[in-house]
Amino acid sequence: MPRAWEPRGERQRVYETRIFQIARQQRISPRTGNGHDFFVVDCADWCNIVPVTAAGEVVMVRQHRYGTDEETLEIPGGMIDPGDASPMAAAQRELIEETGYQARDLVQTGVIAPNPAMQSNRTFSFLARGVEKVRAPELDAGEEIDVVLVPLAEIPGRIARGEISHALVVVAFAYALGLQAPPAP
Amino acid sequence: MPRAWEPRGERQRVYETRIFQIARQQRISPRTGNGHDFFVVDCADWCNIVPVTAAGEVVMVRQHRYGTDEETLEIPGGMIDPGDASPMAAAQRELIEETGYQARDLVQTGVIAPNPAMQSNRTFSFLARGVEKVRAPELDAGEEIDVVLVPLAEIPGRIARGEISHALVVVAFAYALGLQAPPAP
Repeated sequence: MPRAWEPRGERQRVYETRIFQIARQQRISPRTGNGHDFFVVDCADWCNIVPVTAAGEVVMVRQHRYGTDEETLEIPGGMIDPGDASPMAAAQRELIEETGYQARDLVQTGVIAPNPAMQSNRTFSFLARGVEKVRAPELDAGEEIDVVLVPLAEIPGRIARGEISHALVVVAFAYALGLQAPPAP
Repeated sequence: MPRAWEPRGERQRVYETRIFQIARQQRISPRTGNGHDFFVVDCADWCNIVPVTAAGEVVMVRQHRYGTDEETLEIPGGMIDPGDASPMAAAQRELIEETGYQARDLVQTGVIAPNPAMQSNRTFSFLARGVEKVRAPELDAGEEIDVVLVPLAEIPGRIARGEISHALVVVAFAYALGLQAPPAP
C-alpha cells in the first residue's frame, strides 16, 4: 500500500481565473519528514454526452480550442453549473445549447478524473440514443461552434487515426462503446 | 467553419509552479470585436505506456494522487524531460524508473490532447509487449508507488467499472486495444 503524504497547514488559493483556480497545499513526505508544496488546478466538474440520432449518427461539434490553438472535433459538453440540478441535467442543457438537439433518455456511462495528479475535478459521461433536433443552437458570446453529424460506426477509426484528439471525448466513447477484448497471450 | 478569435498583444506567463505554468492571452471576438482574456495551463508534454509481459499481464502502478486525493491504478508515465531524446525514450525511462521493467519493442499508439480547451500540451501513448523485470524500481524522493500486475484481459472490465479512473490511462488502453464497433442502428 503506497503511503500518502499528509497535509500540513491550510490549502490556499494562490491564483484565480473565470474557469479554474490554483490551490497550494504543503504535504509531508512519509519517507523523509520534509515538507513539499503541491499545486492543484481546481475546476467545476464537467460533463459530456455522446448524442446519437435514430439514424445512428453522432451529433458532434467543431470548434477552435485555445489551449492547443487548433480546431477540434468533439462531443457536446461543458462545466456543470451551480444551477444545474444534476450532472445529467447539465449534459442535457449543454447538448441543446450547443447543438439544438434534445435528449430524452440519457444513461450515465462513467465518471473519470481528467488528471488525478494535478486536477481535483471529474467528468461525468453520458450516452443518449434517439436524439432529435428541436431548435437552433444557442451560443454564448464566446462560442463559435459548427454542428456535424458523424456515423457512430466511424468513431473507432477516427479515434485510432487521431481525428478525435480530446482525451475526455475519447473516454466518453470508450465508455459508450467499450474496449475490444485483447487476444489471448 | 468556426471562426477563431485572433490574439491581441503578448501571451503572458501569470503564474508558475514546478509542474505547470499559467499563461494569459487576450483574444478578439470575431462576432463583437470585443477583447476577452483566455487562460491556458502550460505543461511539458507527457508520455505513458501500456507494458505487457509475455504472460499477458499489464505492469501497473498504484499511487496516491494529490489532485483528487485518492489512490489510483495507472500505467507508468510522466513528463517528457528536456534530456529525453524522444517521447519514446521518455516512456522507456519512466517504465524502468517506476517499475524496474524494461521495454525493448515499443510502438507509439497515439497522441492525445489532455484538454485542448485549457491545456497546451499533449500525451504520447505507447504499447510494449514482452516487457521483463530487470531491476528494482528507482523512485524519486516524492514518489510512493506499488507495482501490480493485472491481466490485460481484465482491462476493459476494470475501465467499465471505474476501477481505472485516470482519463489519460483510459485513452492509452483505448489506443492499445481499440474500441468495439457499434451495433448497426
